[in-house]
Amino acid sequence: MPPLPLPGFRDFYPDEFSLRTHLFGTWRAVATRYGFQEYDGPPLEPLELYTAKSGEEIVTQLYNFTDKGGREVALRPEMTPTLARMVAARANGLRKPIRWFSIPQLYRYERQQRGRLREHFQLNCDLIGEPGPIGDAEIIALAVDAVRAFGLGPSDFRVRVSDRRVLSELLAGLGLDRAQVAVAYQVLDKFGRAPREVSVGRLRDAAVGPDAIGRLLTLSGVRTWDAFREAAAGLGDAVGAAEPLRRTLAALEAMGLAEFVDLDLTIVRGLAYYTGTVFELFDARGELRAICGGGRYDNLLQALGGVDLPALGFGLGDVVLTELLRDRGLVPGDQSAIDVFLAGIGEEDASEVLALAHELRDAGLRVEYALSPQPLGKQLRLADARNARLAVVLGPDERARGELVVKDLAAKTQSAVRRDAVGAWLLEALRG
Amino acid sequence: MPPLPLPGFRDFYPDEFSLRTHLFGTWRAVATRYGFQEYDGPPLEPLELYTAKSGEEIVTQLYNFTDKGGREVALRPEMTPTLARMVAARANGLRKPIRWFSIPQLYRYERQQRGRLREHFQLNCDLIGEPGPIGDAEIIALAVDAVRAFGLGPSDFRVRVSDRRVLSELLAGLGLDRAQVAVAYQVLDKFGRAPREVSVGRLRDAAVGPDAIGRLLTLSGVRTWDAFREAAAGLGDAVGAAEPLRRTLAALEAMGLAEFVDLDLTIVRGLAYYTGTVFELFDARGELRAICGGGRYDNLLQALGGVDLPALGFGLGDVVLTELLRDRGLVPGDQSAIDVFLAGIGEEDASEVLALAHELRDAGLRVEYALSPQPLGKQLRLADARNARLAVVLGPDERARGELVVKDLAAKTQSAVRRDAVGAWLLEALRG
Repeated sequence: MPPLPLPGFRDFYPDEFSLRTHLFGTWRAVATRYGFQEYDGPPLEPLELYTAKSGEEIVTQLYNFTDKGGREVALRPEMTPTLARMVAARANGLRKPIRWFSIPQLYRYERQQRGRLREHFQLNCDLIGEPGPIGDAEIIALAVDAVRAFGLGPSDFRVRVSDRRVLSELLAGLGLDRAQVAVAYQVLDKFGRAPREVSVGRLRDAAVGPDAIGRLLTLSGVRTWDAFREAAAGLGDAVGAAEPLRRTLAALEAMGLAEFVDLDLTIVRGLAYYTGTVFELFDARGELRAICGGGRYDNLLQALGGVDLPALGFGLGDVVLTELLRDRGLVPGDQSAIDVFLAGIGEEDASEVLALAHELRDAGLRVEYALSPQPLGKQLRLADARNARLAVVLGPDERARGELVVKDLAAKTQSAVRRDAVGAWLLEALRG
Repeated sequence: MPPLPLPGFRDFYPDEFSLRTHLFGTWRAVATRYGFQEYDGPPLEPLELYTAKSGEEIVTQLYNFTDKGGREVALRPEMTPTLARMVAARANGLRKPIRWFSIPQLYRYERQQRGRLREHFQLNCDLIGEPGPIGDAEIIALAVDAVRAFGLGPSDFRVRVSDRRVLSELLAGLGLDRAQVAVAYQVLDKFGRAPREVSVGRLRDAAVGPDAIGRLLTLSGVRTWDAFREAAAGLGDAVGAAEPLRRTLAALEAMGLAEFVDLDLTIVRGLAYYTGTVFELFDARGELRAICGGGRYDNLLQALGGVDLPALGFGLGDVVLTELLRDRGLVPGDQSAIDVFLAGIGEEDASEVLALAHELRDAGLRVEYALSPQPLGKQLRLADARNARLAVVLGPDERARGELVVKDLAAKTQSAVRRDAVGAWLLEALRG
């Protein structure tokens, strides 16, 4: 027997691949409606492309190795460094804002946990060269639509939006020092998943005072702009720092997406490189991991690629989204039915079957026929097994009259059709 | 500056990616018309999956390494071993014949030659469970159509077909021993590229007699069935062994593809695992490497996967095909134009622009607008730069009348349209 696939890697049989086709096709359609253009880079990159940004500790999670030429290389764990390199290489020739998307397969090598994958696909959308808050709304709207397009509504998933500039101002206004700010970020980030007393305990351990803890708890519960203004009153210039966030939320409302959006200051995003808006998409019941995360990273392209352009974007993976779609019964059935099955009665019909098959395929129809001589009944059973909508039977009597028999396999009806008109007849029948 | 991509790896900028979209989309459409279903496997596989078939020498060409768990692994150099494993794992549950295709990215690590890639994409189509010659015709026809669909005709490319069973019978009939047969295969394989005297010299060096050399040279020039019958007369039962080949060629003729097909006994295919029909697609001028190669490998699934099923298939790469399309001027232009650009005259139009943008995107249109406030002239220049077909201008006077202005940017005409009818109006205008 052949070796099994590597742990954490997936085979995609046709029934599983049809879901991937559905995911990628829907994502491409939505991104294209936003004027985004698709790009891709190499799945294997120099290791340095990742360590330059994240330091050496990221190597523990990378699928990295030394190649035969002595190069330190890694299977890509994320798309942003590749994007930064590509934009930097042609920065002057690219129209701004740059609207690009990609659907890379990404890799990580963590200690294997049960059922944890080491590869996944991720829709990456990035908007580069636009500093203003409408750009933030555009990217958040695209993320929402890339999930909404599968038939999921505001009772299925939510986008939670925050802003690192606001958080930073709030924590400074609470009088937290640098070390306490770091703890507060971690506590906020885990707030939805950790018991309240654990969060409070961690803040107390960091010598955050009871008043500041109380206000932080209040701020954690904020979900609307009005509640935020009240909870943030007197904390530095948090309300002023939130002006871009307010305009982003207003733009999302103008787009008709307000019902999907919650202001949520516990959204921090683990990655250190975000400089403004941060957001995550979650299933509304809170049962799954985040579906999507993103935000503004205005300094990253310069750090990675040497080109100073504001940027923001998100990554939306296939795994959690698929769990949600399965849970809501929104995974479509196998789309691989054929249109027409051709059946010949005698050996002498065989070459006519081949000629007609090719004529119909040239016209764009999905056509199959039996590849070896078989009785008519067996051929029609094969037509059923292939989910054919129509079967065409070619026999000597009909041939003598210049005709064929077309059977509608669902309706159990049949019609005699002129051989020279059968292409147009079938196209019409399949359209109906 | 960030590190360059690894040698032999490609970045796909949007203008390059649009060609990939065209290639993959066309291949998918053609394969689907033949009733083929798409599948995929992991890009990284256990090294043993490849060495089991091809022995250790293949390792010199593999992108292989030891992973962090101590496993010997390789980036996939070909798809067939993965296919064999997947079919073996579900052999009983899959309807025969199995019609599967995939478009994997494949990797090899050869000594770097100038411009030589270390990755490419390849359309793989395989038909499993069908022993007869119509199956061979079906696979060859699919390969032809997967190239023909780009607008290439019989004066652009040819498919050359042979059969290992026939070759084997011919060489035995010529009285060649085992070592001489191996040399003859190598000479035939290089026949089109090597000078005639080199081929003859190699056969002489192997002690092949002058009569046998003369007949081999005649056989090398055979391109039709009638010429084959004449040249093969008296050589064992070569004509009998060619009966499946004759039926395959007749089926291709019935399909209307005869003008693309040459019988060509110099097609050997380097890989040892072919057992019957072998074929290659070449540009008709003979200037490029093979576009596609394939054949019947009836013993391979058993050797690799432990399941005894006859099978045949082909691999069609993106690189040589792209060279041919470029050479013939058949690479389509960038398809990334948007449908509608929305422009607002004053600040107060901004939220109406957002609402309409989202309404139109929901209707499936590709829509952009300026993400920051700009004068109308600059917005319309951006519309031009984005290749928008229509621009919609929202201003205070029109808003007061419940109207918008729609500009056709190519025709330089404009119309006043009711705000509540603009979606339908634009869809109609774009369809026209």
